[in-house]
Amino acid sequence: MYLDIFKIGGNVIDDPETLQHFLDTFCNCPERKILVHGGGVMATDLAQRLEIPVQMQEGRRITDEQTLRIAVMVYAGWINKSLVAALTARNCRAQGLSGADGKCIISRKREPHPVDYGLAGDLTPESIDVLFIDNLINQNIIPVFCPITCSREGQLLNTNADTIASVLALSFSQKYKVRLRYIFDREGVTCPGSDKPLSLLSSRQYQELRRKGIIYGGMIPKIDNALEALKSGIEEVYIGKTSVQL
Amino acid sequence: MYLDIFKIGGNVIDDPETLQHFLDTFCNCPERKILVHGGGVMATDLAQRLEIPVQMQEGRRITDEQTLRIAVMVYAGWINKSLVAALTARNCRAQGLSGADGKCIISRKREPHPVDYGLAGDLTPESIDVLFIDNLINQNIIPVFCPITCSREGQLLNTNADTIASVLALSFSQKYKVRLRYIFDREGVTCPGSDKPLSLLSSRQYQELRRKGIIYGGMIPKIDNALEALKSGIEEVYIGKTSVQL
Repeated sequence: MYLDIFKIGGNVIDDPETLQHFLDTFCNCPERKILVHGGGVMATDLAQRLEIPVQMQEGRRITDEQTLRIAVMVYAGWINKSLVAALTARNCRAQGLSGADGKCIISRKREPHPVDYGLAGDLTPESIDVLFIDNLINQNIIPVFCPITCSREGQLLNTNADTIASVLALSFSQKYKVRLRYIFDREGVTCPGSDKPLSLLSSRQYQELRRKGIIYGGMIPKIDNALEALKSGIEEVYIGKTSVQL
Repeated sequence: MYLDIFKIGGNVIDDPETLQHFLDTFCNCPERKILVHGGGVMATDLAQRLEIPVQMQEGRRITDEQTLRIAVMVYAGWINKSLVAALTARNCRAQGLSGADGKCIISRKREPHPVDYGLAGDLTPESIDVLFIDNLINQNIIPVFCPITCSREGQLLNTNADTIASVLALSFSQKYKVRLRYIFDREGVTCPGSDKPLSLLSSRQYQELRRKGIIYGGMIPKIDNALEALKSGIEEVYIGKTSVQL
């Protein structure tokens, strides 16, 4: 039995037309499915309007108390509920979830070395309450995850959405044939001077492109997670607009 | 079998000490339970910082698009997830919910006459998906509702938390002995010149105090809902810090 895990980020969420198109496609997907969403420009916009500085390192946000509050408001609040409502409008029954809800994704605050990312959560395969989430799926309810998790001690933690998607994929891979789909607005990984995406990217090629700074920022955790997932028995990983296999 | 429905508002949420005390008491309550929370100063503060005007009428917020966004961010985002996380820290398993989640509270946009409240949702007893919510309760998961619901058409709507609590109470009153507890920072309804709350408030007395403007603002929907609930077979309604029976 297949389980499709879709991950969308800012470039899908921020463009109304792309988002509508994605949601239509998503609803029409006949298999069991999970949606994981990231952030978008809204958190950055809000931080700017409230004069809270945004700090990034290797595509990951450094999360202080104020930034966490914004992340929770925007990701767990506006984006998550808007997506659930948009699925409701399409006659899909969805359930918005942070990791705190039902304690379904329990994370650990990242160690402050070598970089102190602040209130950032790291996951292990044991982080996921598969039974709780599977219970929703079996009721024909689509879990919609925002990139906020929670420590055992009750601390909300900002968590990379790509990581959530890949750890969910790993956790469900014993029960389902999991297909992990990172949906965004480009066809895949491109090289400078070319609009065409690479049809195949080897692990060695990736290290090379990363070293040269051609693959950078938010693509780094995305590809790291994808490679990790493939090593661990996930059926397929897609990164791209349509279906470019990594 | 008892079901205790607790409702907390801004005056509990905004004061850390009152909130911690409430959460301890709530977790120790041995019966099946639901938590409904309202807003607080945070939404108003955020609106002010973003220079969005706040409009109120008879204790109810007038909700335009911008105000809805703030309400969803603060209520469904920060407050809801903070409460769920605080319950997690107390070893309680909770599930944050807006009405959109699982389509569990489907509302209707309020008619724009005589007052146009904008994106405000009204409820009927049929609004509540008792089965979905009861399924959580039976799994020993505490539903935590924010004051955001959703129309059948997928429009998120701002909804009075007191109303959500009382409609939940009505919907569950066939299955459980429901006790509805409006928790706030005063002992109950007081009259000018006295610190002591009225030990008993009759419906007629209420109409009189309301006419004179002594009961006003946010207390009006609270007492209206309480009286409505009592008429309809709810076991008990409390309004106050401890347990002052209406």
